[in-house]
Amino acid sequence: MGVVQSNVWSGGDGPSRPALATRLARLGTETAYVVAQEAGALKASGAKVLPFHIGDLNFSTPACVVQSCKDALDAGHTGYCAAAGIPELRKALADHYNETFGLSYGPENVSVQSGGKPAIGKFLMVCVNEGEEVLFPSPGYPIYESMAKFLNLTATPYEYVEKDGGWALDIDVLEKLVTPKTKAIIVNNFQNPVGVAHTRAEMEALAAFSVKHDLFVMSDDPYYQITFSDFDTSDFVHMAVLPGMADRTICAYTYSKSFAMTGWRLGAVLGPQAIVDAVTKINTNDEACTTHFIQKAGVTALTHPDAKAFTKNMVKELEVRRDLLAKELSTVPGFVPLIPKATFYMMVNVTGAMALVGTDSLEDFRRAVLKGTGVSFCTRAHFGTPLEGEVQRYVRFAFSGVTTSDIEATGAALRPFFEALKK
Amino acid sequence: MGVVQSNVWSGGDGPSRPALATRLARLGTETAYVVAQEAGALKASGAKVLPFHIGDLNFSTPACVVQSCKDALDAGHTGYCAAAGIPELRKALADHYNETFGLSYGPENVSVQSGGKPAIGKFLMVCVNEGEEVLFPSPGYPIYESMAKFLNLTATPYEYVEKDGGWALDIDVLEKLVTPKTKAIIVNNFQNPVGVAHTRAEMEALAAFSVKHDLFVMSDDPYYQITFSDFDTSDFVHMAVLPGMADRTICAYTYSKSFAMTGWRLGAVLGPQAIVDAVTKINTNDEACTTHFIQKAGVTALTHPDAKAFTKNMVKELEVRRDLLAKELSTVPGFVPLIPKATFYMMVNVTGAMALVGTDSLEDFRRAVLKGTGVSFCTRAHFGTPLEGEVQRYVRFAFSGVTTSDIEATGAALRPFFEALKK
Repeated sequence: MGVVQSNVWSGGDGPSRPALATRLARLGTETAYVVAQEAGALKASGAKVLPFHIGDLNFSTPACVVQSCKDALDAGHTGYCAAAGIPELRKALADHYNETFGLSYGPENVSVQSGGKPAIGKFLMVCVNEGEEVLFPSPGYPIYESMAKFLNLTATPYEYVEKDGGWALDIDVLEKLVTPKTKAIIVNNFQNPVGVAHTRAEMEALAAFSVKHDLFVMSDDPYYQITFSDFDTSDFVHMAVLPGMADRTICAYTYSKSFAMTGWRLGAVLGPQAIVDAVTKINTNDEACTTHFIQKAGVTALTHPDAKAFTKNMVKELEVRRDLLAKELSTVPGFVPLIPKATFYMMVNVTGAMALVGTDSLEDFRRAVLKGTGVSFCTRAHFGTPLEGEVQRYVRFAFSGVTTSDIEATGAALRPFFEALKK
Repeated sequence: MGVVQSNVWSGGDGPSRPALATRLARLGTETAYVVAQEAGALKASGAKVLPFHIGDLNFSTPACVVQSCKDALDAGHTGYCAAAGIPELRKALADHYNETFGLSYGPENVSVQSGGKPAIGKFLMVCVNEGEEVLFPSPGYPIYESMAKFLNLTATPYEYVEKDGGWALDIDVLEKLVTPKTKAIIVNNFQNPVGVAHTRAEMEALAAFSVKHDLFVMSDDPYYQITFSDFDTSDFVHMAVLPGMADRTICAYTYSKSFAMTGWRLGAVLGPQAIVDAVTKINTNDEACTTHFIQKAGVTALTHPDAKAFTKNMVKELEVRRDLLAKELSTVPGFVPLIPKATFYMMVNVTGAMALVGTDSLEDFRRAVLKGTGVSFCTRAHFGTPLEGEVQRYVRFAFSGVTTSDIEATGAALRPFFEALKK
């Protein structure tokens, strides 16, 4: 453009550069980071903070995985590898999915990713056109909505509702959300934040719904290895094995939670080869490949008995925390914990507690509790805008990064704070 | 949509799933991988292959960097870190750019990336709207065009032309390509594939052009640490320090080439904070963060004297290879090597050699030479479609992954093959 027209760009973004792209206005984020910042600031001021806002783990990655990574470094696996991942990791991931869920993937059904999160955007880029619609869970992981809107898709939330001390979704409500533009649905069984473990009947209903409306399905699978002793494994089924689902289901796998590897950034997309190949083509254009020597460690995590034992022990410890947290929170006035059978997240109905504080604002409530007790958590609002008609109020306690004494201290801090408000 | 309408989706992609997104038709790739596959197949058949097609290095990552990565693993840097990167790496990268180029970046001007490549798509997403135009070099790195088209931008090539035994770009031709929709230009000084090292005068002309037309500039910087003894460092300037450029220049840094870390996937975007913050917001939605413990190793690579010595020695060895390769190829009938002062790529004018083979097809020529001599290289066509009026024909020799005896063997294999064609 000419000099005169350059005024078109000025004003908005800086003294001497064009305006940034308008699509940025559609990009969301994880607002939970604001909570982490506030908790960090409080801690820096010398106060004791009890951190239930973070989904990171205070467990160390299994030693066998760390050693495998070092061995791969020593063996010189420091050059480029294939965009889809090294063959042995693709095979290990396919084998793992096949053994765990009864699928029949081969290495060609696997594209290695730098974590589970990249799978979300890539799924949407590969499967959904601009202007088409994707259904996503609410409450749910906020990146679903953010990436869908960034890509100029229509993002429509479907609701989880409290039921019988847990969470359920209503297929009839889902039916009402479908339009001629609906192209995909994101399903997050063992869900963040509500921790729901779907029954086989629910998964079958979701599958039939997806087939009926000819939808792609993303099965976001970060937490299926973190299930507790009261979870009925016989009542579980993976979406991809149900009738008509193999060709339309794309799975997002991550090492982050099962092996305390959040900072390693290793995951995968698994599904029909045409979709996996398209994802890999995006890899070639984006990250090139996932870190070579880390992929070797990824094989070890899936095959070494010590890694399996690690997950088992970690889940056992998480269950201890869950039970203790439920016990402590149930003694806090106005708190009704909803006990998850999976994940390390506990939703708590705080409708009564908010009445005690005298606010209907989740943010005001969160800040008042943080300031008054040092207990830090996210709220339902960090997992999507509360939906129309939603009258119950919830917060989320992540028990992945705390000790049992933190949990006891939490009860001890919350009880007097809310008891005092009752008077 | 209803059952009847589901026919809309069927037919194209598989037996029982909807059609994939149409944007995939606009996504390109690195066609050089096909060359690697063909060379691999030939090698697997028992033939000797002389591999000049790959831009990977046959050097090992410096031991101090490997050790630093292991130490970071042992220290437990295996959890999430900030989406923009760890503070000490952001500072180390800012310091490095400031010392190398005379800039004045702070940590807030740095967003750590999983390699240099992710910076390309993120730059375009942050700076260019759909339907706007980006200028990219041709011959040039193929991902520029691929990502621009994938994002539904108009991608317009600007040409490098052979001049005085090297390569030059013509600002007057650039002026003719500008339209009212032109929003950005990608500049790759020390360029893949032509290896051009721009003079200060050329960079000043490019900067003035960018200011005049109010363009964002991406300075893709993978190779500035790989310059040879005949490169006049006093005649070098980085785009970002020129008048009016600080606010509009976004730099893409990578560890891949300078430290033989291609498979580590570590890089960064550096530039104005508003742009860097937007890139970081995309990180949050995409890869979450770059591998935590690898970032610690990245600090070591930029600050440890052994890493600096490694680069110096590697460049010395690359210069030996360059000189030997130029000497060998200049004795091959119809080969005119253009000697680069930077990078590890040598373009060779093979117009005469192609006449000897009797083809005007770069692919036919490449395959004939591979089959007849085992010498494997990419051609100009792997770096963008040859432009209108382009009559000279080129191939690219990457001397990053070969030994000096490979280079001698290459001359010995090529000479008789083309001598025989002369008869």
